[in-house]
Amino acid sequence: MSLALMTRDDDTRRQEAQNLRARIRSGAHHGLTTGLAPGMVQLNLAILPKTWADDFKHFCELNPKPCPLVSMTEPGNPIFPSDIGDGLDVRSDAPRYLVFHDGILADEVTDLTDMWQDDFVAFGMGCSYSFEEALVSGGLSLRHIEQKTKVPLYVTNIATEPSGPFHGPTIVSMRPFLPEEAIRAVEITAKYPRVHGTPVHFGNPEMIGIDDIADPYSGAPPVIHENEVPVFWACGVTPQIIVEHAKPSICITHKPGHMLITDRLNTELAD
Amino acid sequence: MSLALMTRDDDTRRQEAQNLRARIRSGAHHGLTTGLAPGMVQLNLAILPKTWADDFKHFCELNPKPCPLVSMTEPGNPIFPSDIGDGLDVRSDAPRYLVFHDGILADEVTDLTDMWQDDFVAFGMGCSYSFEEALVSGGLSLRHIEQKTKVPLYVTNIATEPSGPFHGPTIVSMRPFLPEEAIRAVEITAKYPRVHGTPVHFGNPEMIGIDDIADPYSGAPPVIHENEVPVFWACGVTPQIIVEHAKPSICITHKPGHMLITDRLNTELAD
Repeated sequence: MSLALMTRDDDTRRQEAQNLRARIRSGAHHGLTTGLAPGMVQLNLAILPKTWADDFKHFCELNPKPCPLVSMTEPGNPIFPSDIGDGLDVRSDAPRYLVFHDGILADEVTDLTDMWQDDFVAFGMGCSYSFEEALVSGGLSLRHIEQKTKVPLYVTNIATEPSGPFHGPTIVSMRPFLPEEAIRAVEITAKYPRVHGTPVHFGNPEMIGIDDIADPYSGAPPVIHENEVPVFWACGVTPQIIVEHAKPSICITHKPGHMLITDRLNTELAD
Repeated sequence: MSLALMTRDDDTRRQEAQNLRARIRSGAHHGLTTGLAPGMVQLNLAILPKTWADDFKHFCELNPKPCPLVSMTEPGNPIFPSDIGDGLDVRSDAPRYLVFHDGILADEVTDLTDMWQDDFVAFGMGCSYSFEEALVSGGLSLRHIEQKTKVPLYVTNIATEPSGPFHGPTIVSMRPFLPEEAIRAVEITAKYPRVHGTPVHFGNPEMIGIDDIADPYSGAPPVIHENEVPVFWACGVTPQIIVEHAKPSICITHKPGHMLITDRLNTELAD
């Protein structure tokens, strides 16, 4: 995400996001959304039957850092409320979906129209692309972007607040900063509670149950320079794993990196 | 500063502040203002002749963390603008003042009426009482308050941005926190840029030129528990020392702990 792109006109960015979503809907784009539609909010998706949805909604409310709920649909209605865009159809508007039966990956599809159920509820949750863009706009450099690697993720001993069948540990992403940069990063992300908000920890990985910082759960082993401290944010992978572990009869998520692009600017998410 | 006091009616608190200021003005109270007038903004004072005031104003603008300028007077006018209170008279409304000639402490007085000059300009700067109250309201415990000691201050290698004769190192105060508390403390103080704002550093004292954390420049040696990190904020002692070192022909400050109480609520300083 370059700063040059951040200065483009908001209407232009909205129009580009709508054009890209039209291409995704028509089947012309099934690839990653990472780095596309700069400036626009992209959402993590989870789709569950109504019988599971109330507990999951409550789970999001109890755990706003890993599960920052931005919007959700009415049961059976595949269209998101208009506050995140005009006619966003969860069946067709993300490029790629994963289908889980009883918590086990069963299928990967590019459209949900044929398998849509009239009791489905879709949840759209904020993702770290938004706060990373804000950090870069704020003058901070992100190591995994410098290194062209995936951000490292870790399983922590920070338990989420349980709700019905949904419970488990918080997954975190890690970005190293000098202390004064870390302070700035907290200040910036404090303005974005709907995209994970402030870090959950910095400094000592062992305090949150991470035994070996060089061995992430996913992503590349981190490069941490002298005097830098690791800063940990709650990650949107948390609800994905927790939903899988709850083993609902059916659950559909976006495929990681293949997000739902909205008509909202990241800057509009700021408090 | 107890939470019970924080819940009192704003008008009551304003009235109490005005009553206390009237007692200070009449000479009935010459003592500390620490812990008095809870909820109200107290200001650090510096009074300089007009020939020095422009450079000092610019110094404050360049260094908002150590020198958060809240209000200043017109040359010769001892009354602060009404945005901080009704008829606040800098000659009489702080309980105790220090008078410096050529940077050397020459006198301690309780009233400036007889020595007021028609070229004097008074600067009122935010003080840490305001952000400490916000931290306590946010559920954080401050070690130096627990221990009933003075907050430790340190001289750093962080240079202020110079302006004319005003230059020198940033002085910091230190409060220890667990990492998750430190994140919360950054989040809270980010809302108070006019009372020092966010920390300038955390973690490694040597990075900011503090060789021995157990040996503060002033205040009590700190008690830091296991897993806590030292968090450093720019301190209002910085401009006091820098003004003294600039050796103006005359300079008057409040005596530490004997502040100017305003009619503004701390919560009104929040962005």
